Amino acid sequence: MSDVVFDFERARRIGLDEAVFCQGKTATQIASLLAEARARGAGLLLTRLDPAQVAALTDFAGDLDYCPLSRTAFFGPLQPVRVRDKVVIVAAGTSDAPVAREAQRSLRHAGVEAELIVDVGVAGLWRLMARIEEIRRFPIAIAVAGMDAALASVLGGLTPAALIAVPTSVGYGAAENGRTALNAMLASCASGVVVCNIDNGYGAASASLRMLNAMGAFDARTQSSR
Amino acid sequence: MSDVVFDFERARRIGLDEAVFCQGKTATQIASLLAEARARGAGLLLTRLDPAQVAALTDFAGDLDYCPLSRTAFFGPLQPVRVRDKVVIVAAGTSDAPVAREAQRSLRHAGVEAELIVDVGVAGLWRLMARIEEIRRFPIAIAVAGMDAALASVLGGLTPAALIAVPTSVGYGAAENGRTALNAMLASCASGVVVCNIDNGYGAASASLRMLNAMGAFDARTQSSR
Amino acid sequence: MSDVVFDFERARRIGLDEAVFCQGKTATQIASLLAEARARGAGLLLTRLDPAQVAALTDFAGDLDYCPLSRTAFFGPLQPVRVRDKVVIVAAGTSDAPVAREAQRSLRHAGVEAELIVDVGVAGLWRLMARIEEIRRFPIAIAVAGMDAALASVLGGLTPAALIAVPTSVGYGAAENGRTALNAMLASCASGVVVCNIDNGYGAASASLRMLNAMGAFDARTQSSR
Amino acid sequence: MSDVVFDFERARRIGLDEAVFCQGKTATQIASLLAEARARGAGLLLTRLDPAQVAALTDFAGDLDYCPLSRTAFFGPLQPVRVRDKVVIVAAGTSDAPVAREAQRSLRHAGVEAELIVDVGVAGLWRLMARIEEIRRFPIAIAVAGMDAALASVLGGLTPAALIAVPTSVGYGAAENGRTALNAMLASCASGVVVCNIDNGYGAASASLRMLNAMGAFDARTQSSR
Amino acid sequence: MSDVVFDFERARRIGLDEAVFCQGKTATQIASLLAEARARGAGLLLTRLDPAQVAALTDFAGDLDYCPLSRTAFFGPLQPVRVRDKVVIVAAGTSDAPVAREAQRSLRHAGVEAELIVDVGVAGLWRLMARIEEIRRFPIAIAVAGMDAALASVLGGLTPAALIAVPTSVGYGAAENGRTALNAMLASCASGVVVCNIDNGYGAASASLRMLNAMGAFDARTQSSR
Amino acid sequence: MSDVVFDFERARRIGLDEAVFCQGKTATQIASLLAEARARGAGLLLTRLDPAQVAALTDFAGDLDYCPLSRTAFFGPLQPVRVRDKVVIVAAGTSDAPVAREAQRSLRHAGVEAELIVDVGVAGLWRLMARIEEIRRFPIAIAVAGMDAALASVLGGLTPAALIAVPTSVGYGAAENGRTALNAMLASCASGVVVCNIDNGYGAASASLRMLNAMGAFDARTQSSR
Amino acid sequence: MSDVVFDFERARRIGLDEAVFCQGKTATQIASLLAEARARGAGLLLTRLDPAQVAALTDFAGDLDYCPLSRTAFFGPLQPVRVRDKVVIVAAGTSDAPVAREAQRSLRHAGVEAELIVDVGVAGLWRLMARIEEIRRFPIAIAVAGMDAALASVLGGLTPAALIAVPTSVGYGAAENGRTALNAMLASCASGVVVCNIDNGYGAASASLRMLNAMGAFDARTQSSR
Amino acid sequence: MSDVVFDFERARRIGLDEAVFCQGKTATQIASLLAEARARGAGLLLTRLDPAQVAALTDFAGDLDYCPLSRTAFFGPLQPVRVRDKVVIVAAGTSDAPVAREAQRSLRHAGVEAELIVDVGVAGLWRLMARIEEIRRFPIAIAVAGMDAALASVLGGLTPAALIAVPTSVGYGAAENGRTALNAMLASCASGVVVCNIDNGYGAASASLRMLNAMGAFDARTQSSR
Repeated sequence: MSDVVFDFERARRIGLDEAVFCQGKTATQIASLLAEARARGAGLLLTRLDPAQVAALTDFAGDLDYCPLSRTAFFGPLQPVRVRDKVVIVAAGTSDAPVAREAQRSLRHAGVEAELIVDVGVAGLWRLMARIEEIRRFPIAIAVAGMDAALASVLGGLTPAALIAVPTSVGYGAAENGRTALNAMLASCASGVVVCNIDNGYGAASASLRMLNAMGAFDARTQSSR
Repeated sequence: MSDVVFDFERARRIGLDEAVFCQGKTATQIASLLAEARARGAGLLLTRLDPAQVAALTDFAGDLDYCPLSRTAFFGPLQPVRVRDKVVIVAAGTSDAPVAREAQRSLRHAGVEAELIVDVGVAGLWRLMARIEEIRRFPIAIAVAGMDAALASVLGGLTPAALIAVPTSVGYGAAENGRTALNAMLASCASGVVVCNIDNGYGAASASLRMLNAMGAFDARTQSSR
Repeated sequence: MSDVVFDFERARRIGLDEAVFCQGKTATQIASLLAEARARGAGLLLTRLDPAQVAALTDFAGDLDYCPLSRTAFFGPLQPVRVRDKVVIVAAGTSDAPVAREAQRSLRHAGVEAELIVDVGVAGLWRLMARIEEIRRFPIAIAVAGMDAALASVLGGLTPAALIAVPTSVGYGAAENGRTALNAMLASCASGVVVCNIDNGYGAASASLRMLNAMGAFDARTQSSR
Repeated sequence: MSDVVFDFERARRIGLDEAVFCQGKTATQIASLLAEARARGAGLLLTRLDPAQVAALTDFAGDLDYCPLSRTAFFGPLQPVRVRDKVVIVAAGTSDAPVAREAQRSLRHAGVEAELIVDVGVAGLWRLMARIEEIRRFPIAIAVAGMDAALASVLGGLTPAALIAVPTSVGYGAAENGRTALNAMLASCASGVVVCNIDNGYGAASASLRMLNAMGAFDARTQSSR
Repeated sequence: MSDVVFDFERARRIGLDEAVFCQGKTATQIASLLAEARARGAGLLLTRLDPAQVAALTDFAGDLDYCPLSRTAFFGPLQPVRVRDKVVIVAAGTSDAPVAREAQRSLRHAGVEAELIVDVGVAGLWRLMARIEEIRRFPIAIAVAGMDAALASVLGGLTPAALIAVPTSVGYGAAENGRTALNAMLASCASGVVVCNIDNGYGAASASLRMLNAMGAFDARTQSSR
Repeated sequence: MSDVVFDFERARRIGLDEAVFCQGKTATQIASLLAEARARGAGLLLTRLDPAQVAALTDFAGDLDYCPLSRTAFFGPLQPVRVRDKVVIVAAGTSDAPVAREAQRSLRHAGVEAELIVDVGVAGLWRLMARIEEIRRFPIAIAVAGMDAALASVLGGLTPAALIAVPTSVGYGAAENGRTALNAMLASCASGVVVCNIDNGYGAASASLRMLNAMGAFDARTQSSR
Repeated sequence: MSDVVFDFERARRIGLDEAVFCQGKTATQIASLLAEARARGAGLLLTRLDPAQVAALTDFAGDLDYCPLSRTAFFGPLQPVRVRDKVVIVAAGTSDAPVAREAQRSLRHAGVEAELIVDVGVAGLWRLMARIEEIRRFPIAIAVAGMDAALASVLGGLTPAALIAVPTSVGYGAAENGRTALNAMLASCASGVVVCNIDNGYGAASASLRMLNAMGAFDARTQSSR
Repeated sequence: MSDVVFDFERARRIGLDEAVFCQGKTATQIASLLAEARARGAGLLLTRLDPAQVAALTDFAGDLDYCPLSRTAFFGPLQPVRVRDKVVIVAAGTSDAPVAREAQRSLRHAGVEAELIVDVGVAGLWRLMARIEEIRRFPIAIAVAGMDAALASVLGGLTPAALIAVPTSVGYGAAENGRTALNAMLASCASGVVVCNIDNGYGAASASLRMLNAMGAFDARTQSSR
C-alpha cells in the first residue's frame, strides 16, 4: 500500500489548501507529511492535533505554532495577512471557543484575519445587543453555538451577512452531542442560514474562503503559490 | 369489556379536571362521555376534536362551543373567569397558533384567562422586544415554538417568570416533527425552562394550573364542584 | 388572537424578502396575506403552494404566476432581472428538479437569474464532466441531490465556487427521507461545503442572496422597495 | 479572545444566579472565575465539578464546600435559609440520588431548604405510599427517576403540586442513557408534568426558583444582592 | 411463484396455531386461505383485518365472527373454552383496548378464556388498587399500555404472576409511536417483566399459550386437531 | 438523605429476591448492603460486579462466591437446588456466554438449576440441530444472542417452550450495541417469543422464576424465608 | 430546465441497463421516456410503477407487460433468456413476494431466468430444509426477508453461493419499516453476506448481473445492443 | 459450560474458513483456540487483534504474522497464493486504510492476492481517474470509504465489476460513526452496489470469496484442506 499522498495541488484547482486532519493519525504519519512539506518549502495547517501528538513531533517542534485551545498548528512559514474586516466569528459561550478558534486559526493560515467575539449567547441577550452594530459591519459571519443553538437564528435576523452556522457538541442529554444544535440551525426560523458539520470550525473557515473567492476579495488560486 | 369510565373525581384529588382526548376515539365513544357528563350536569373540555367528529355529534351540537383552530370544544356550562393576569402564552409564529390556542382554551375552561401573543419569533427580534415589558408582567409564561424553538431560550433570559416551553411539530426535514424543538428547549442555554410534550398545549395549561395551585391563586379542588 | 402579521419590513433589515410558506396554511390565511400585499402594491413569493390551494385562491388567480413543479408562485408585479451569471443550480436527477426549481424561482423573484443544470448525477460521471467548465464559471453554485448526495462532494472538488448543498428527500429505505443525503453533505470529503435543510430550495436561494449581498452584487435593502 | 465573562448581573434580571457548569472546563478557567467571585465578595455555585478538578483548586480549598455525591460545591459565604417547606425532591432509587442531591444543593445555595426522599420507586409501591401524605404537603415537587421513570406518572396522579420531572441516565440498553426516561416523562399519562433535561438537577432547582418567584415566596432579584 | 402455503401443521410442532396476519394482504389472498381452511374443516384466526377487507369477503361472511375494535375474526367452528382463570389482561386506558382485545380474542380462539380489565392507568392509582386483589389471583398477567407504560412497572411490583408487557402506539410526540412505551417496559424497574412488539396483542396471547403449555394447563399439540 | 434501604421483603410480596445491581455503586455502598444482609443472616445475589469492586470488598471476601465471566457473586449461604430440568439457556456464541451465565447464576441463587448450551448460533445450523431434542425437553427456554439474533426465531419454530429472548450487545456497527438484536427478537417471525432488555440475563432469570411460580414448580414466597 | 435525459448508453459502460424508477414521476414524464425508447427501438424496464400510472399510459398499453404484484413493467421487445440456473431468489414469506418478484422480473428483463422460492421463513425451518439442496445448486442466491431477517443468516450457513440479502419493510413496530431487517442482515452471524437497500429487488438483480459479468456468464456490454 | 468450539469444518460446508474475531475475547480464550489449531496443524486468521492481546500471546509469538494497521494476524502455515488479478480494493483516504488492509489480508489468508489502491477519494477526482483503467480490469472491486462514501457511487458508475462497498467509521459529527457512509452506500445512485457492515473488511473479503466460488476461480471447499 502506498504512503499518504498529500494533495499539494488542491489550492490551484479549487482555491483551498488541504489541511491535515490529525485525529486518528499516528505521529509517524503526521511526521511524514511534515517532512514532505518541509522539503517542498510549503506551509501546512494541522487540525485536531492533540498535545500528545505534538509532544511526539520533536523533530518539528521549532516550526510548529501550536494552539492547545483549538488543537490547531501552523507548520512552516506563515503567509502574511492579506484580507481584513471581512469575517466575524461569533460564539455563544466559552465552551464553544475551541471551535470558534479553529475557524479563526484556519482563516489566519490562509491569510485572512477574522474578528472573534465570544460569550454572547442569547440567554443574556444584552451581551449580543452590545456587539451587534460591530457584527453587522462584516459581510461574512460565522455563528458558533451548541445546546439549543439559538444564537444562529437570532443573528440571522439581525445581520444581512452571509451567515455560516457551526453547531458544537457542547451540552449533554438532549443536546445529543451536537445533533440538536445542528438540527436547530438547519431548521432555523431565520432564512438563508447555512450549516457545517458539528464542531467543524475548519469547514466554516473553508466555506468563508470560498465566499471570499466569490467576492473577489481573495484569490486562493494565485495566493497559495507561496 | 367495560365502557369508558370517566374520572369525574380527579379534580378533587389533584386539582385538575380530566379532559377528553378525542384523537383516535369514535364519535360513539365521545357521545357516550358527553351523555354521562350531561346527566351529571358537569362541563367537559374536549381536545384534538376534529371537525368530522364534531359533525357526527349532532345530539350535542347546541352545547358544544367548538374552536376549529385549536380543535378544542367546551361542553356544557362554562365556569366564570376567576383568575386573570397570571398567565401569558407567547407563540413564535402563526403556525404555532393552534397549540397556543389549545393552551389558552384549556385554561379558560378551568376559569383562567390567559393573554395570547403570537408571531414574535426571534428571527424578527424587534417583534418580541416590542412586547417584552408586557410579557414580563406575568408570573407564569408559556412559550410555544417549533423548528429551532429559539424563542424559549431568548424569553428565558428576559423574564423571571415560571416558564413552560411547548415544542410544536411545525417545520420539516431537520425539524423532525418537533423533536428538534423539543431537544432545543430541553438543552436551552436559559436555565429553569421546563418542557412539555410536542404540540401539548393542554399539558402546558395543566402545568400552569398546578403552579397556580401552588401559588394559592387557584384552588382546583374546590373550584371544580360546579 | 391577532391575524397573521406579515413582515414587509424584513428586506430593509436583513436584505431578504419574507416568503409565504403555504404548507399547513388554509386558503383563507393565504388569501388574507395576498389581499394585504395587493393593498400595499407589494409582490410576494409563495412556496409549498399546492394546486388545491391555488384552485381555492380564485380572487387572485390573475395575479398568480404558478409553477406546479416547484409549487411556487409569484404574486403581483415581478421585479426585473438585475443579477445574471452569478448563480448556477446543479441537480443530480430529475427527481431533484422540484427543489432545484424552487431555488431558481426564489432567486428569480428577487431579481436574480440562475442557470439550472439537471440530471448530472455522479453515477454517470460523464454527464457532469460535460458541463463542468460551464459550472466552474459561476462564483456561487447550489448542488441539489438526494439519496447518497455524492454530487455535492464531487462538485466540491471541481469548483472553487461558494458551494451550497441542498439535500432532497428523494429515495427510500436507507435514504431516510433525505436524512442520509443531509448527513453525507455535512460529512462531505470536500471542504467548505455548506448545507441547507432537506428540500429547502428557498433556503439555498436566500443563502445565495446573502452571499450576493456580501459580494456587493446585490443590495437587497434598496432593491425590495418595489 | 477575551476571557470568560461571568454574568454576575443575571440574578437582577431574571431572578436566578448563574452557576458554573464545570464539566469541560479546565482548573485554570474555574480558578479564574473563583478569583473574580472572591474579589467581588460574591458566593458561587459550581456544578459537575469532579474530584480531580477540586484537587487542582488548592488556592480555594478552604472556601469550597464540596459534595462528591452530587459533584456540586458552594464557594464563599452561603446565604441563610429563607424558604422552607415549599419544595420536596422525590427520587426513585439510590442511583438517582446524585441528581436529586444536585437539585437539593442548588436550592440550598439560593436559600431554599428542600426535603429529599430517596428510594421510593414504584416497583415497591408501598415505599412511596408510606411517604405520600408527607409529599402531598409541598406545593412544589421534583420527581427524579431513570429507566422507566414511572415514578413521575404515579406521583402526578397523587399530588396536586407543581411537578417537575427530571429523567436520569440510570439504566442500560433500552434505557438509552436517559432518553427513555425523558420520553416517558414527556408522554406521561398524568397531566401537567413538566420535564427538564437528562440528569439536570440544577435545572429543576432553577425551575423551582422561578415558581417560588411566581408565588412571591422568594424574590431572587432582591435576594441575590448578598 | 407458488401461492401462499399455509402452515396447518404448526400447532403439532410448537403448540401454536398460525394466525393470518391480514395487513397488507389482498382480499383475494385472504379468501384463498379461507377457502383452503374451509376445505380442511379447520378454524382460523385472522388478525389486523380491516372492515374494508371484511366487506370484500362476501363468500365467507356467514362464517366470520368479526370484532371491529380488535380487528380480529374467527373463521369456522370455534373450539370450546377449555382453560379458565389463568390469564388476566390489564389495559391502562380505553385507547389501549384494541390491543388488549386482540390478545383476549386470540386466546379465546385457542380455547382460553381471559379476563379483561381496562382503564386502570396509574395516573389514577385508585382504579388499579381497586382491582389488584382480583388481578393477583391469575398466574399469568398481560399488561397493555402506551405512552409512559408505567402500568407494567407498577403491576410488576404488585403481582407475582408471569407478566407479559405489550406496549401500544397510543400517544403522540415523545411517545414515538410506541417506542417509548416499549423501551420503558424493557427498562422497567420491576424485574422479570418480559415484552412483546408494539401493539402485538396476538404475540402476548401466543406467549401466554407457550406458558400454559409449560404449566401443563394446555396442550396445544393435541388441542388443535379440531 | 437516608441510606440505601434494601427491600428484603420483596420476595414475600412478588416471589422474587431483589438483587444488588452493582454497576455505578461505590464499594462503600455495596459493603453497607452486605453488612446488613450478614446481620440478618440473609443471602444476596450481586450482579454487574466488577473485579475492581470485588477487590475492594476485603471484609466480605470469604463469603463471596464470585464468577468473573458473568460478573455475579453469591453472598452468604446459598440455598440448595430445589428445581431441576425446567429451564434451558441457549446462547448463540461464546461472546454471549457472560449474559447466559448471569441468567444461569441468577437462577441458581434462587435454587433453580438451569442447563446451559453455548455456541449453537444458526450460521452453523448443525450445531443447534445436534442439541435440539435435548432443548425441546425443557418447558422454559432462554435464548441469548447478539448481532442478528436469528437464534431466537429459529428456536421459536423448533420448541413449544415458553421462550424468553435476551439480546446481547455483542457485535459492532449495524449491531448498534444490541439494539438490532433486540428489535429482531421483538419482530421475530416466530410467534410468542418474549424479550428482555439488552444483556439482561438477570431479567430473564427473574422472568423464568415468575413462570415457575405460575407453574407451581417454585413458590418463591415460601422459599425465600431462608 | 431540460427534459429527462435517459442514459441509453449506460449498458455499454457498466454492463447494466438503466431502469425507470417510476415512484414520484408523473405519467407525462414516464410517457415521454417511453416515446423516446420506442423511437429508438429500445426495450425498457419500469419499476415501482403503480396501477394508476399504468392506467394513464394509454398510448403505450399494448407494449407494456405489467406485473401488479411487483409493480414492474417490460416495455417493448423483450430479449430472449440467455442465462439459466445461475440465480435463485429465496423469500421468507408471502409478504416478501413483491420484492422477490421485482428481482426476478428485473433479471428476466436482462435475459436471466431466476428461480423463485417463497415462504421458507425460518420459523418453520422444515420448509427451508426441504428446498435446501435445490438452493445449494445455484452459484448466486438472493435472500429476501423482513422483520427479523433470520433467513439470510441461516441461508448463509447453508450455501456457499454468493449471497445477496434484501431486507423488506414487512412488519410493524420494532421492525421499523425494514431498518431492523437491514441491520440484522448487515450484522449477520454468517460471513460474506452482502446487503441491498430496503425493498430493493431491482438492486439485488443489478448486483447479480454484475456478478454474472464477473463470472463471464453474461456480458451486458454486448448484450444490450438489442 | 463447554469451552469455545471452533468450527474447523465450516470451510467444507460453505467454502469459507471461520476467522477468530478477537475483540472482546480474553488472551486466554484466544490462546486456547491457537493451541487447538496448532494441534490440528491448521492455519488461522485472527481479526480485531489488539497489540495488547498480541503481547499476551507469548507462547505463540513465533507463529503469528501480525499487521498492526489492520489488526489482523496469520497464525501457522500460510497457504500459497492461488488466485491473482481478480480483486481490487479501492480506499477513499488513508484513514480508511486499516479496513482496506483487513480485507486484503483476509483474502491473502485464503490464497487470494488483491490489489490495494488508497487515497483516491472523489474530492480530488483526478486521483481516481488516474487509476480508473487499472481498476476496471478487475472483475471484483471492493470500495472502502467513510464520511460521505461518495467513492462507492462514483466507482459504481465507472466499472462493470461486482462491487462490494464497505463503509468505515471515519469522520465525526454527522458521519455518525459510519452510519452515514453505510446509508449513503445503500442508497447509492449507482445500481447493483452491495454493502457490508461498518468497518467490516473481513466481511468484504468473505463476500469476494463467495463470488470467486461462484466464478469457479476458487473452490474453497477443496482449498481449505491444507
